[in-house]
Amino acid sequence: MRAFNIAIAGLGTVGAGVVRLLRENAGLMEARAGRPIVIKAVSARDKNKARSCDLHSVEWADDPLALPQISGVDAVVELIGGSDGVAYEIAKAAFKNGKHLVTANKALLACHGAELARQAESRKLQLSYEAAVAGGIPIIKTLRESLAGNRILSVQGILNGTCNYILTRMQEAHLGFDAALREAQQCGFAEADPSADIDGHDTAHKISILAALAFGIMPGADFMQIEGIRHITAGDLRFAEQLGYRIKLLGVARMTENGLEQRVGPSLVPKVLSLAHADGALNAVMMRNKYGGDVVLQGEGAGAEPAASSVLADVIDLARGLSLPVFGIPAAQLKKSLAPESDAAKSRFYMRLQAMDKPGVVADISAVLRDERISIESLLQHGRSQADVPVVIVTHATWAAAIRAAADKIARLPAIVEQPCLLRIED
Amino acid sequence: MRAFNIAIAGLGTVGAGVVRLLRENAGLMEARAGRPIVIKAVSARDKNKARSCDLHSVEWADDPLALPQISGVDAVVELIGGSDGVAYEIAKAAFKNGKHLVTANKALLACHGAELARQAESRKLQLSYEAAVAGGIPIIKTLRESLAGNRILSVQGILNGTCNYILTRMQEAHLGFDAALREAQQCGFAEADPSADIDGHDTAHKISILAALAFGIMPGADFMQIEGIRHITAGDLRFAEQLGYRIKLLGVARMTENGLEQRVGPSLVPKVLSLAHADGALNAVMMRNKYGGDVVLQGEGAGAEPAASSVLADVIDLARGLSLPVFGIPAAQLKKSLAPESDAAKSRFYMRLQAMDKPGVVADISAVLRDERISIESLLQHGRSQADVPVVIVTHATWAAAIRAAADKIARLPAIVEQPCLLRIED
Repeated sequence: MRAFNIAIAGLGTVGAGVVRLLRENAGLMEARAGRPIVIKAVSARDKNKARSCDLHSVEWADDPLALPQISGVDAVVELIGGSDGVAYEIAKAAFKNGKHLVTANKALLACHGAELARQAESRKLQLSYEAAVAGGIPIIKTLRESLAGNRILSVQGILNGTCNYILTRMQEAHLGFDAALREAQQCGFAEADPSADIDGHDTAHKISILAALAFGIMPGADFMQIEGIRHITAGDLRFAEQLGYRIKLLGVARMTENGLEQRVGPSLVPKVLSLAHADGALNAVMMRNKYGGDVVLQGEGAGAEPAASSVLADVIDLARGLSLPVFGIPAAQLKKSLAPESDAAKSRFYMRLQAMDKPGVVADISAVLRDERISIESLLQHGRSQADVPVVIVTHATWAAAIRAAADKIARLPAIVEQPCLLRIED
Repeated sequence: MRAFNIAIAGLGTVGAGVVRLLRENAGLMEARAGRPIVIKAVSARDKNKARSCDLHSVEWADDPLALPQISGVDAVVELIGGSDGVAYEIAKAAFKNGKHLVTANKALLACHGAELARQAESRKLQLSYEAAVAGGIPIIKTLRESLAGNRILSVQGILNGTCNYILTRMQEAHLGFDAALREAQQCGFAEADPSADIDGHDTAHKISILAALAFGIMPGADFMQIEGIRHITAGDLRFAEQLGYRIKLLGVARMTENGLEQRVGPSLVPKVLSLAHADGALNAVMMRNKYGGDVVLQGEGAGAEPAASSVLADVIDLARGLSLPVFGIPAAQLKKSLAPESDAAKSRFYMRLQAMDKPGVVADISAVLRDERISIESLLQHGRSQADVPVVIVTHATWAAAIRAAADKIARLPAIVEQPCLLRIED
């Protein structure tokens, strides 16, 4: 059988990793793909940069948009990144020129996934993106193929290694958020501008892709409720631990009686769930299914090699002739994800207050909660030696709107020092 | 597109589950498969038995071997079980008649997998078996497709829910083995004759299939070193816990400098690994990869619904036209797994002795270990009130042959009451 030819746009760590893995394992990849996989052309910003990969007998294109036009190329591998600009242009050009697209670009998928899926499917081409979510964990294939015979009830994922590293270090070493972030930056787990990670937008892109696969909706984070981890304190992690939980930044997509709930935020995860124990830079995803319970996948979420391995798995699938809808069902059948349905179901909540140690404070707080019809499951008060003390309240299941209204009222009580910290409890 | 027609042989819990899931989700399955999936015919032992599934407009065959001959059937779903007999005949007849085969039959795969793969591939047919290992966990697809771009270094799996349930209950409730087995039988987690499970043969079949996928060898448990869990005591679980481990029955396939190591046995798993926390009837598999670290999958390993969900995922893949080698590379390229290479690498070991509480016992034991060039990492001695006391030794990395020779010598020491219990430590 003739070779399967790819062209790679972008030779950063993942792109160089793809070249290296393919060179190191050419024979094995050929046995698995049923034909040789050949890198026909590459493009990157600087031709003369020293790279840890062997580019002999590979055509060089200064313009990445030239790649989709090279005759004989079967698939374009887009590893440039960004929701728009060159990456988007390459994707469109690939389909226009009859090439499959493999990408690790979650922003592209989250912003243009439905449109690109229609373009690909109308030309009987594939759009593959295993590396776009959770690096080396085969979560796309699991949702798109392995659970095709099931009904998914919810997907909960630790999808951002930066946040998970920061929260783990805060827990282990009792660091504050800023110190943990600095450490993450020094270790290469966080970027100089970490906001896309720590404010939850990266997780939002990823969970929106998983929600599309799980629930047949168009991907997109437009209406998602997104909260980051800047306001989490080492104290919150300690309290959560005492209560039997770990705090994780979760992306959640869940089918409820009232529609699809999609959100990103730091949440209390019960220690009995294996999600609670995916620490450091790991990613983990739990799928709750109608038939046969939970399936959990865990592994490296970022880094050159996990992503390169996933990109190559996609390439091998294409070389074998895999053909299936981009989001599991035909793109034309994907439904719009309409409203912000974060209040589709009740949750238990964790609320941490900073209160002046005066008589009657707990009575005032309790009265506000009673007025919002929120009942208290437990209340902890610690460290009475300081002028103001943390008070931690765990509520019974309630609506997010009610607990937020209560938090705003509580913030205005004279003895309350700052806006309460409100976290969902995942049960 | 025309319907994809299946014929189901065997209507036990899994077979009935497949019928029910397909009936309940026909529209969704059609969207995912790109065409309707139709149950054209079924066969089971007793036509008149009451079943929890709707069989209207389905052809009934008294002889399951008639199913592969029904014209218009695209795939035969074999859910009868057993390595030989009817299941084996159905598989051969399916390929001879140009039908794909979907099966949940690990024994069939472990005993005849290479031969059946050659038959299927020579006729460009598929042999699909996601449900054969670890029920609802997509371990076959992960190894065969998702990790196709990687090199797998080892696969370690908790693959038998019965054993995992027994060990978990021994740990949690401090039950002895016999009491935990009785409880498992009462709860439906263990069969009346539990030997295939608790003696490790079921795990051996399963790990041999995973080893074939991971390392390109023919499946088969002929040369595997297999040990069950009958000799594990509640005390072993307590000692392991103190040392920072959990005891799990593991199937292990690992590439070493000296070749492929394949074995089944109770092992000490460090509590830092998520494998250690897959409790109860759960299954879990950890793949250690050359590129990008560990990937862990966890979920329900048995039961009608997880298995039915996996069977349906296979059927949907076939309806979509998936085509790939049965064990990831062409069957003709699979290598023979030759020798029992359980000693391919050194391990640390846990040894529990029952010793009379006499002076000099530890000196005698230490001398035996020294003579076998085994060094002691730690030694625990507990409960000195009884006439004989358990002594637990953790060794540094050593060869299995050496530690076994030492154990035999130690068993012959006058102060030693019974044959030492020897467990591998997974590091």
